[in-house]
Amino acid sequence: MNDAQSMTPEIPGDVGLVEYHDFLCEQPFTFDCGKTLPGFVLRYETYGHLNREKNNAVLICHALSGDHHCAGIHSLKDRKPGWWDNLIGPGKSIDTNRYFVICSNVLGGCQGSSGPSSINSQTGEPYFLDFPEVSIADMVRAQYLLLTQQFELSELHAAVGGSMGGMQVLQWGIAYPGFAKRIIGLATTGRQYAQTIAFNDVGRCAIMQDPNWNEGRYEAGKGPDVGLAVARMMAHITYLSDKGMENKFGRQRKASDQGNPFAAEFEVENYLRYQGKSFISRFDANSYLYITKALDHFDLYGESGQMEDSLCAMESRVLIVGFTSDWLYPPEQNRDIVHALLRCGKDATYAQLNMDLGHDSFLLHAPELYQLIENFIND
Amino acid sequence: MNDAQSMTPEIPGDVGLVEYHDFLCEQPFTFDCGKTLPGFVLRYETYGHLNREKNNAVLICHALSGDHHCAGIHSLKDRKPGWWDNLIGPGKSIDTNRYFVICSNVLGGCQGSSGPSSINSQTGEPYFLDFPEVSIADMVRAQYLLLTQQFELSELHAAVGGSMGGMQVLQWGIAYPGFAKRIIGLATTGRQYAQTIAFNDVGRCAIMQDPNWNEGRYEAGKGPDVGLAVARMMAHITYLSDKGMENKFGRQRKASDQGNPFAAEFEVENYLRYQGKSFISRFDANSYLYITKALDHFDLYGESGQMEDSLCAMESRVLIVGFTSDWLYPPEQNRDIVHALLRCGKDATYAQLNMDLGHDSFLLHAPELYQLIENFIND
Repeated sequence: MNDAQSMTPEIPGDVGLVEYHDFLCEQPFTFDCGKTLPGFVLRYETYGHLNREKNNAVLICHALSGDHHCAGIHSLKDRKPGWWDNLIGPGKSIDTNRYFVICSNVLGGCQGSSGPSSINSQTGEPYFLDFPEVSIADMVRAQYLLLTQQFELSELHAAVGGSMGGMQVLQWGIAYPGFAKRIIGLATTGRQYAQTIAFNDVGRCAIMQDPNWNEGRYEAGKGPDVGLAVARMMAHITYLSDKGMENKFGRQRKASDQGNPFAAEFEVENYLRYQGKSFISRFDANSYLYITKALDHFDLYGESGQMEDSLCAMESRVLIVGFTSDWLYPPEQNRDIVHALLRCGKDATYAQLNMDLGHDSFLLHAPELYQLIENFIND
Repeated sequence: MNDAQSMTPEIPGDVGLVEYHDFLCEQPFTFDCGKTLPGFVLRYETYGHLNREKNNAVLICHALSGDHHCAGIHSLKDRKPGWWDNLIGPGKSIDTNRYFVICSNVLGGCQGSSGPSSINSQTGEPYFLDFPEVSIADMVRAQYLLLTQQFELSELHAAVGGSMGGMQVLQWGIAYPGFAKRIIGLATTGRQYAQTIAFNDVGRCAIMQDPNWNEGRYEAGKGPDVGLAVARMMAHITYLSDKGMENKFGRQRKASDQGNPFAAEFEVENYLRYQGKSFISRFDANSYLYITKALDHFDLYGESGQMEDSLCAMESRVLIVGFTSDWLYPPEQNRDIVHALLRCGKDATYAQLNMDLGHDSFLLHAPELYQLIENFIND
């Protein structure tokens, strides 16, 4: 770097206008549950350029309610960029001047990838509950086909994900040892514990008890919106923290709403009800059932109860980051992954950040977090 | 105590068969919200005997889903005794050989006291949402009328309650200084914080979005059972702790249920769904709305933001007990009450118990807790 450059450091830019693509896999795909589909679609986006050696690809794995659109905008009218736009872009911590970034919507999802709302060509209507049960390993296997068939990759510079994305990157390391050179998992866990299963099940019950669910058979736009909104509101609380909510909302009241005494009165109620409503416009209730079940079935401890039995296959360097205020996947659950890796003699490190914003801390622009990711990915 | 007695200590007994009574207050009762009812009913039970000096009465205040039946059985066929039967009885920590114990169902409730499901004599049908909004202070004022009119009490030896019962006993100390000589509050708070308001609101939304809620107008037995069950399932998680749930359930699976892939699969799901179902048989959904709102409005910090401004009126000796694993009303919120009392120069003490069972720890038979209560009440 010359003096002029060091005095005027490059201002990080945005990836700008982006578009999605659909990867159509036309070979039969057998799920962990034993069922087979004749093929599947994964919707994905890419940013930056794949180099000639094909060794600069970074895979981003999204969380339960995320999607393939993790950076940039789809049109100049877009009010919000992709969900990790703060992290990914030219000159940003995951630098698209340097890396070829790929992010796909998970199998079982509802944002363009095959899932229960996709059309079953044999019946001409959506799969509904005939869609095979999906596991985290299925999601990863579908991503592997995308990377190896569409891009002919034989390695990833890194795989990065938080929450369910963290489960996927761990699974990447186990299923395809050495394929991903670096694995970064944030706010994640080696298995779903009873409390988290319990919260997911309440959400599923809320959806299934909505008369519009109709055993999973509903027309697009006429689904169990009410149940899905309740599920989302509850889940959203688990993504925050008591302190974060207190700082943001406390007991602030909104402008009074005459009439129904149980209308939203406190700002926190208003916020959550809005979150519930906006979710139903972008998410399919059956996908919510499928993906939460995939989470609940995730268990790297397996029958032996020893995570080492799964993790010993790993050949990647691993960084796991936990957040003190995350009570969905608390720091201990993150740290336990690294301890198990270290017991297997693997190259793994754990960082814990003091952020008040709960589980969703990994989605926020936090310089301390981004610096950790940047240094690990560039090392 | 003679030697024979000390060698064969009395085995604590049960209060045995008990029955409830209804206190009918026939004078107009004006609620904090400004509305007036021509009178009200409180259903209550008593155990032990009121002494001639009328100074041995102990008031028990119940939590959100509790009732007046806190000890003994109603018939020999009863499978479960009252909810605090472990604590209350002859020779138990709250010794009915010594104290006259009174417990009433709260105003706004649905177990015999006046609430939204009570018949409005002017219309001949239930009040539904015409029932006045209820506050914790209203509940306490109704209890005061029961104690002073029915039993002509001018003092309480003690008032004891956990969770919402803890809010009531604090309100007792503030509204009627010196009436209760001792106040014991367990797993409680000086105000409802944003996260707890948020959970309550999700529960309310689940109820109100059930088509059977019908703006609060439903026939007995045809109410929003589905919404109420979801609300209860979610709330039940907040009464436990992650560690407690993990120890009890972990990832244990129940016998497989063919068919619906989203049927209860893990034991924790089975348990919660059972909790939801059994709740709808004993609780009215409108009462759930009213009482959770009473909780959310509870705020001893008031406009000044200083709990001392409320607590300085207190003339009772106060014991507050927090539980380390309680994340609904965490230890700090309990401790803060005592700190504020001490800043006012009051006689108050805080104890914190390491129990893994979360908020509901106060309901469990824990010798360490019961010893604290016994010694404080007998002192």
